[in-house]
Amino acid sequence: MNIVLLSGGSGKRLWPLSNDSRSKQFIKIFKTEDGEYESMVQRVYRQICSVDSNAEVTIATSKSQVSAIHNQLGANVGISVEPCRRDTFPAIALAASYLHDKRGVAAEEVVVICPVDPYVEKDYFEALQKLGECAAVSEANLLLMGIEPTYPSAKYGYIIPKSKENISRVDVFKEKPTEEKAQEYIEKGALWNGGVFACRLGYVLRRAHELIEFTDYQDLFDKYETLTKISFDYAVVEHEQHIEVMRFAGMWKDIGTWNTLAEAMESSSIGKAILNDKCENVHVINELNVPVLCMGLQDVVVSASPEGILVSDKIQSSYIKPYVDEIHQQIMFAEKSWGSFQVIDVEEESMTIKVTLNAGHRMNYHSHEQRDEVWTVIEGRGRTIVDGVECQAAVGDVIRMPAGVPHTIIADTKLQVIEVQMGPDISVHDKKKYEFPNTTQQK
Amino acid sequence: MNIVLLSGGSGKRLWPLSNDSRSKQFIKIFKTEDGEYESMVQRVYRQICSVDSNAEVTIATSKSQVSAIHNQLGANVGISVEPCRRDTFPAIALAASYLHDKRGVAAEEVVVICPVDPYVEKDYFEALQKLGECAAVSEANLLLMGIEPTYPSAKYGYIIPKSKENISRVDVFKEKPTEEKAQEYIEKGALWNGGVFACRLGYVLRRAHELIEFTDYQDLFDKYETLTKISFDYAVVEHEQHIEVMRFAGMWKDIGTWNTLAEAMESSSIGKAILNDKCENVHVINELNVPVLCMGLQDVVVSASPEGILVSDKIQSSYIKPYVDEIHQQIMFAEKSWGSFQVIDVEEESMTIKVTLNAGHRMNYHSHEQRDEVWTVIEGRGRTIVDGVECQAAVGDVIRMPAGVPHTIIADTKLQVIEVQMGPDISVHDKKKYEFPNTTQQK
Repeated sequence: MNIVLLSGGSGKRLWPLSNDSRSKQFIKIFKTEDGEYESMVQRVYRQICSVDSNAEVTIATSKSQVSAIHNQLGANVGISVEPCRRDTFPAIALAASYLHDKRGVAAEEVVVICPVDPYVEKDYFEALQKLGECAAVSEANLLLMGIEPTYPSAKYGYIIPKSKENISRVDVFKEKPTEEKAQEYIEKGALWNGGVFACRLGYVLRRAHELIEFTDYQDLFDKYETLTKISFDYAVVEHEQHIEVMRFAGMWKDIGTWNTLAEAMESSSIGKAILNDKCENVHVINELNVPVLCMGLQDVVVSASPEGILVSDKIQSSYIKPYVDEIHQQIMFAEKSWGSFQVIDVEEESMTIKVTLNAGHRMNYHSHEQRDEVWTVIEGRGRTIVDGVECQAAVGDVIRMPAGVPHTIIADTKLQVIEVQMGPDISVHDKKKYEFPNTTQQK
Repeated sequence: MNIVLLSGGSGKRLWPLSNDSRSKQFIKIFKTEDGEYESMVQRVYRQICSVDSNAEVTIATSKSQVSAIHNQLGANVGISVEPCRRDTFPAIALAASYLHDKRGVAAEEVVVICPVDPYVEKDYFEALQKLGECAAVSEANLLLMGIEPTYPSAKYGYIIPKSKENISRVDVFKEKPTEEKAQEYIEKGALWNGGVFACRLGYVLRRAHELIEFTDYQDLFDKYETLTKISFDYAVVEHEQHIEVMRFAGMWKDIGTWNTLAEAMESSSIGKAILNDKCENVHVINELNVPVLCMGLQDVVVSASPEGILVSDKIQSSYIKPYVDEIHQQIMFAEKSWGSFQVIDVEEESMTIKVTLNAGHRMNYHSHEQRDEVWTVIEGRGRTIVDGVECQAAVGDVIRMPAGVPHTIIADTKLQVIEVQMGPDISVHDKKKYEFPNTTQQK
């Protein structure tokens, strides 16, 4: 199975766990059988591999998510990097060109395209596989998956099939309706549109060339910023006459708000939390290493991370976005391809962060104009290069990097350093990158 | 006015703001006219000085609070240090001996004794001053202040006076009653017992010598641990025949729980907080430097500090103690006589703290057996002494202290350092103190 996972933007609706640099799909909140926690992306990837160990997975996403994907899924997964956000039609067009031109996927091969963030079980991916197999033999140009509605939701688009067969021609698409309308549609056999499509790769490429003037992947990539924002539904699906829908009746949840996320949690809390016996329907996700104590609360979600603390009535939590839009503060935690960093102290003219480098990874070779830095190694082994001179680095070693001096650190094992930054104007933009150097070994 | 303020123990009922090392009276939650925040202790001390600029203030407290008192009130305030906690009668006996033997207060002089933590206005201290003046001319041995009840509370003891005069002989004392009983007492003119007494110093000393065998202050101090825990009310007040009570009708609040503390707050939040318009009767005290967002909550108090996060229904918050008793974690923030420290990162074999030294203060000269330490100066100027060698220290300087090597830092201005501790067994108990050294100056 060739599967393209569409990985959406920086969701603020799960603040403080999601933020500009960490989308909801990377938050580790789902308990696995071995008691560890995994993210939405990890869960979906694991489920796909368990259904089809030969699956070729490509993630269509923005540049800002590449680090987190490599960090959580490793290097084997394909990534179609969008230079900027342009909605699903340009994203799918780019991913299709990437598969064809960069990964050598033939135009006759079937691709299954689906969002990266449904909360589902293995049967969903078995259905996707079947959708792909049907697309390979179908006379329709496009096969959709329609989800059997469990209630008359006003949050989803509806697909009304011509028949109640398992696979049926599509009669008509309906935008997000009122709940009354939704009830009517459901009585006519309507299905939720979960944004899942299967078709031959060539079909997507033809539609892409019809609507966008481009020669190949690189050309499309280069002009990506000039493309119009438009969804695949509007641009392609709703104009296609030869289109069919396959019913799916298994578990499917859209985890977009704290309320729905809480429903998917296996226990009432993740992280250090104490709930007294007067709490009812309370969920806590605490990423800090100090406890959250809840007493006498009803229908409340509490979430604490290095970014902030949310305490919300569950229904109210859907209205979070405008409040979070007003919070302007620096990123306190971020996952990178090489590891992660966390801001642990901020003062007027200094900032202290903890940097974690995964084994075998390294920072860019870089310098800062406006600040001096000091590293103290607190875990692991590695090497530093400062001004072209390489040194071994182990626990207890201290490395000083005055402003202007290029430096990097290379992790031979998992490596942690406390980095103290000092200067009058500390900014993430104050960074000059250099080619990785030939070094003089000092010891 | 000679005034003794009784400063009680480590209140857990205002966790996470109060903890084993920080009692509620040191939390800065009261907004002053210039927009700064002050603690209960600072507020009371400021109020006393504004009523009587010559007031001699002595704080009776345990060793563990001495640093915080010096830090918040400066060095001028007298402190009667209790070697351990033994309730109010031993504490008052010790404070009386301290005043007599150490501060030269004559036996004929009047002292006013009161708790450090009532939430009151200036008129309360004007009443205390009057209480002292009356005690100086009264034939009674002991004068109490009785607070006009504002509701039939079951939380306070009651004093029933013989008459409704402003100053009256006491008829009888009543323990904390039921609300029905309280109503009856109030109808008879009963007053709340706020734990405020005025008498001649000699009176307390006589009672102390009657009940405890000791020669002088030092002797009492040395045997303090052997004393029986008993309150001044039980030991003295309730046996005294020549006793009067003075009425006080001004504002008086006992801020012992989150619920009552919230009532005393001038605004709905202190620190970074956002409350949406669906919040009703919500109070937030946030000591962290990331925001707390509250949505759709009713009658809730939220408090966040480096120690943890409380989210509680206001009424439920009175039942916090047993839950906090179960939280066993290291102190994350503490005020010391020389400044303060805050734990900013904890790993398996390292801990990182931010140390703030007030100008003119210094650490003990000390070493650790089980850990190496590194200081990076992030603010201010001072000097370090490491293994007897003194060096200047300024922003950007890095000081390494291997295990076993004695070290200290002296702040010439306010000084902040990031201290990285590294070792297999990091503990507050791993500390060896030395005499302050004669140094060799390196630069």
